Amino acid sequence: MNKPESLANIRIVLCQTSHPGNIGSAARAMKTMGLSDLRLVNPRKFPHAEANAMSAGATDVLEKASVCATLQEALAGCGLVIGITARQRQLSHAMVTAREAVAEAVAIAVSQPVARVFGTEMSGPSHEELDQCQLLATIPANPENSSLNIASAVQVLAYELWQTAMEPSVAAARSFPLADHAEVEGLYQHLEETLIRIGFFDPQVPKRLMPRLRRLFARARLEKEEVNILRGILRFMQDARKP
Amino acid sequence: MNKPESLANIRIVLCQTSHPGNIGSAARAMKTMGLSDLRLVNPRKFPHAEANAMSAGATDVLEKASVCATLQEALAGCGLVIGITARQRQLSHAMVTAREAVAEAVAIAVSQPVARVFGTEMSGPSHEELDQCQLLATIPANPENSSLNIASAVQVLAYELWQTAMEPSVAAARSFPLADHAEVEGLYQHLEETLIRIGFFDPQVPKRLMPRLRRLFARARLEKEEVNILRGILRFMQDARKP
Repeated sequence: MNKPESLANIRIVLCQTSHPGNIGSAARAMKTMGLSDLRLVNPRKFPHAEANAMSAGATDVLEKASVCATLQEALAGCGLVIGITARQRQLSHAMVTAREAVAEAVAIAVSQPVARVFGTEMSGPSHEELDQCQLLATIPANPENSSLNIASAVQVLAYELWQTAMEPSVAAARSFPLADHAEVEGLYQHLEETLIRIGFFDPQVPKRLMPRLRRLFARARLEKEEVNILRGILRFMQDARKP
Repeated sequence: MNKPESLANIRIVLCQTSHPGNIGSAARAMKTMGLSDLRLVNPRKFPHAEANAMSAGATDVLEKASVCATLQEALAGCGLVIGITARQRQLSHAMVTAREAVAEAVAIAVSQPVARVFGTEMSGPSHEELDQCQLLATIPANPENSSLNIASAVQVLAYELWQTAMEPSVAAARSFPLADHAEVEGLYQHLEETLIRIGFFDPQVPKRLMPRLRRLFARARLEKEEVNILRGILRFMQDARKP
């Protein structure tokens, strides 16, 4: 039984982790399922002896872990970004089960990096963090007490990834490459500027316009070529406004 | 979503646990997946403040937990006993995956108690303990590092139990109505006219522009409200071209 290659493209992103022991436990959970790419966004304490102690044999995962100042930095290059959340959010992205999300993640990870984003221990990812995700996944659990420890949540997701990646019939690579995170964010930036320029969007009265548009395009999983087409349209829209 | 009744008949048995924190973490993992029957065979320290601390909201599971002098006592009344082990044993019982074991466990738990037996943190169940099991289950994992933390192993098994007990799947109703066919076609029409008007699209040299845009939005499964937003943007784009 060899380690499936697609797992090398799966990135675990932990945001604002409070307890270093949880980082170590998450690293251990990752390693048991063949994952090694850990990114930490503003951890409160890292590196830390407690993280090492809880990692058991997974100190190599901790040593390779990169500490990032922003979530955006942690997501660089990713073709798919999946947010892990315990509950349905208002006006949220598509919400699927962990198992469903894993099937899509493994298919894309054959050719491009895929990130799974975990929030703080207390409250999960923030709205701003979830806005950068294209898919939300939840671990179905007891509605009376659905709060998994963060390392346990990483373990369940990693377990599902391993089971799916080890299946013989993992979906073939996509025929068109997906836009990476920075390309999609660049599109949103360009879109917002253009909507302001043509007078459709007033940033003083934003309502939920940009989150709604992000949600729409997130569901589509934009390809590189599609981002190029959409930005081409935006350039023509801006030109139309020139005096 | 109600708690499946079969889960009340699932018993988690932890043998000779060394660290009380692991008992607390296991209780927390159980409660997130609707399990409440915990039996402890000769725990080194229990009850213990560390167990309470790690259980988060699951102190009720710890309070109801029974401490047993022997594994036999912990298994009283069980119709099926499943041993959880990381590795194949020589001359072992039938060995299945966690997922396969869960399917059988849930079927039997509808009418009779079923136990899942976990060994010590260091070495899993002993040969003598496994002899009392009828089925051995393993959590498929990275062969280079397959040692899950005991609470993580309980979490994975409990997660599998909940998923199986809760089938059919959790797919929730969509909260926002989808645009109907005519609305989506109206959008495409409006989009094409606007792209011609701003000079981005030349119908004499169509290439594959409109089919590509249709494909993008088709993947997104547009909602009614999203079609309204997009057509609002198109109206502003057209106005921008007026002399």
